[in-house]
Amino acid sequence: MPRLCVPLWSFQAALCPTSTCPPPCRHCLVPQPISSLSPCRTGLVLVRNPHLDLMEEDILYHLDLGTKTHNLPAMFGDIKFVCVGGSPNRMRAFAQFMRRELGLAGAGEDVADICAGSDRYAMYRAGPVLSISHGMGIPSISIMLHELIKLLHHAKCRDVTIIRIGTSGGLGIEAGSVVITDMAVDSSFRPRFEQVVLDDVVVRSTELDKDLAEELLTCSRDIPDFPTLIGHTMCTYDFYEGQGRLDGALCSFSSEKKLDYLRRAYEAGVRNIEMESTAFAALCGLCGLKAAVVCVALLDRLQGDQIRASHEVLWEYQQRPQRLIAAFIRKRLGCDQC
Amino acid sequence: MPRLCVPLWSFQAALCPTSTCPPPCRHCLVPQPISSLSPCRTGLVLVRNPHLDLMEEDILYHLDLGTKTHNLPAMFGDIKFVCVGGSPNRMRAFAQFMRRELGLAGAGEDVADICAGSDRYAMYRAGPVLSISHGMGIPSISIMLHELIKLLHHAKCRDVTIIRIGTSGGLGIEAGSVVITDMAVDSSFRPRFEQVVLDDVVVRSTELDKDLAEELLTCSRDIPDFPTLIGHTMCTYDFYEGQGRLDGALCSFSSEKKLDYLRRAYEAGVRNIEMESTAFAALCGLCGLKAAVVCVALLDRLQGDQIRASHEVLWEYQQRPQRLIAAFIRKRLGCDQC
Repeated sequence: MPRLCVPLWSFQAALCPTSTCPPPCRHCLVPQPISSLSPCRTGLVLVRNPHLDLMEEDILYHLDLGTKTHNLPAMFGDIKFVCVGGSPNRMRAFAQFMRRELGLAGAGEDVADICAGSDRYAMYRAGPVLSISHGMGIPSISIMLHELIKLLHHAKCRDVTIIRIGTSGGLGIEAGSVVITDMAVDSSFRPRFEQVVLDDVVVRSTELDKDLAEELLTCSRDIPDFPTLIGHTMCTYDFYEGQGRLDGALCSFSSEKKLDYLRRAYEAGVRNIEMESTAFAALCGLCGLKAAVVCVALLDRLQGDQIRASHEVLWEYQQRPQRLIAAFIRKRLGCDQC
Repeated sequence: MPRLCVPLWSFQAALCPTSTCPPPCRHCLVPQPISSLSPCRTGLVLVRNPHLDLMEEDILYHLDLGTKTHNLPAMFGDIKFVCVGGSPNRMRAFAQFMRRELGLAGAGEDVADICAGSDRYAMYRAGPVLSISHGMGIPSISIMLHELIKLLHHAKCRDVTIIRIGTSGGLGIEAGSVVITDMAVDSSFRPRFEQVVLDDVVVRSTELDKDLAEELLTCSRDIPDFPTLIGHTMCTYDFYEGQGRLDGALCSFSSEKKLDYLRRAYEAGVRNIEMESTAFAALCGLCGLKAAVVCVALLDRLQGDQIRASHEVLWEYQQRPQRLIAAFIRKRLGCDQC
């Protein structure tokens, strides 16, 4: 990996609109690892791409938005919280729920999909909260995050908190438990995200905001209806073989081998398994977004592979991260003192 | 990689319902590479998982279907063609288009989403044609394919042809060109798909059906409105950095480095880039499905990164693979002789 560009904050500084960060490095167009950069002091969302400044227009293709076709600062400049999740219906329901929770005008009415011109993702607003679907898996969430981060950058948003509210398979925990991720790990239980960039494999940190995770855990104490815990989250590229399931179209391992693998994951601190957290942590961290992952476990993978709970039970489980995040946002906005 | 189980066709034979394949191997529950297996002679869709026989019920969670809740042979037993693509709206439009093309009852009316209970994927029928969305990226299409293959297996479908009709970035070809994939390659231009299975990385072949590709190319000669060609398709895990784009939220390479990479891909035979073909080829090949990938190029990546064409032009581009596949299916069904 070439390391020609020092200091490493060159990209960040090049794009810091208030010049409070160090001046840009003249050599920053050479390949370099963009990790371990300190966040911008302005609270702005950072893009780490010097080419963007040279573009007259930026088309956020998969969101059906753009800098020439939409007034992004007017549409999104006041956003403070972004919540993302796999399912478009769930994210619409979350926006409706947040409207009620925040006592906003139009609560109870249907919410409009801001990305209605594209069916790749769905996006809804509830006051300062943006609710977006990201589909399933790292590639799908990565496309959305690249375009979302550019959107927040173009809109000049400040001090944005981003939270993934999802579903997952639990590990040694009761179905319905909510896991706040302290560390996203790969299928070898390592806190890293590997990204192919041209001919190189770049390794990125998957650190999440520790204070935010603790703040969320504190909020959860006011919701006694379901257990909430902090633990590592394992992120895989596949739901069946990649998570040691015995019920896919392909399976070449025994039940014993599966359980041995899952038990080792548990011993390494993993409490749930999903398919987006490492990329989410890496991308958000690099762009100065304070990020958290809050997922409900739909089953305990040490007990089985198939998701057998009824639609009603699963629906109630999926409300749990939403309820926790609503409590957190209300607290942050001081709603409970109103 | 342990290679304890010989012959390699053991899984296939264990599940061949007509016993025309060789008898099962008694050791087949040990980890082994499941590649280069010859297809089952019965034309049935194969699952390569001996555990499935032990399950009383199989819940296809992301499709909202199951063996106890649905009569899968009655619902799907006569399916001969499965067409898959990223976008749910596009796959609904394709089902409506196929109904008209095949002169089916209900042509012109709206089609019902068979997976309406889940918003992860959308599935529509048009006579012997099933049209299903798969979202974006390898993890998303993998989940769908595992469940689709099990569905076709449970439904006892025979002689199924599966075609991915998608969008892609072209390489050295005119925007709007349709590429029939002869070989799906990874970001290092190798015809392989790597899958993590517990502690191992299993390498799988990404070979597609050569006769099917040629048959599709022959069909394309009757549609002179747009260019169609055969070429390699590169499959990546990321749309921005992973495809050498300069317009993502992160970019640490120069325009020269990008073009050098894309030109090397072109020299290796790559004519378009997308995000699902290697996993699609690997999974379908292992399960005895004759598979093809037919994607339209929305732009030429040697000329730029952003998709700038109007909605109308993009809409017409996306019709092109659909028109080709409709011509192919009509020919296979002998419709043109009716």
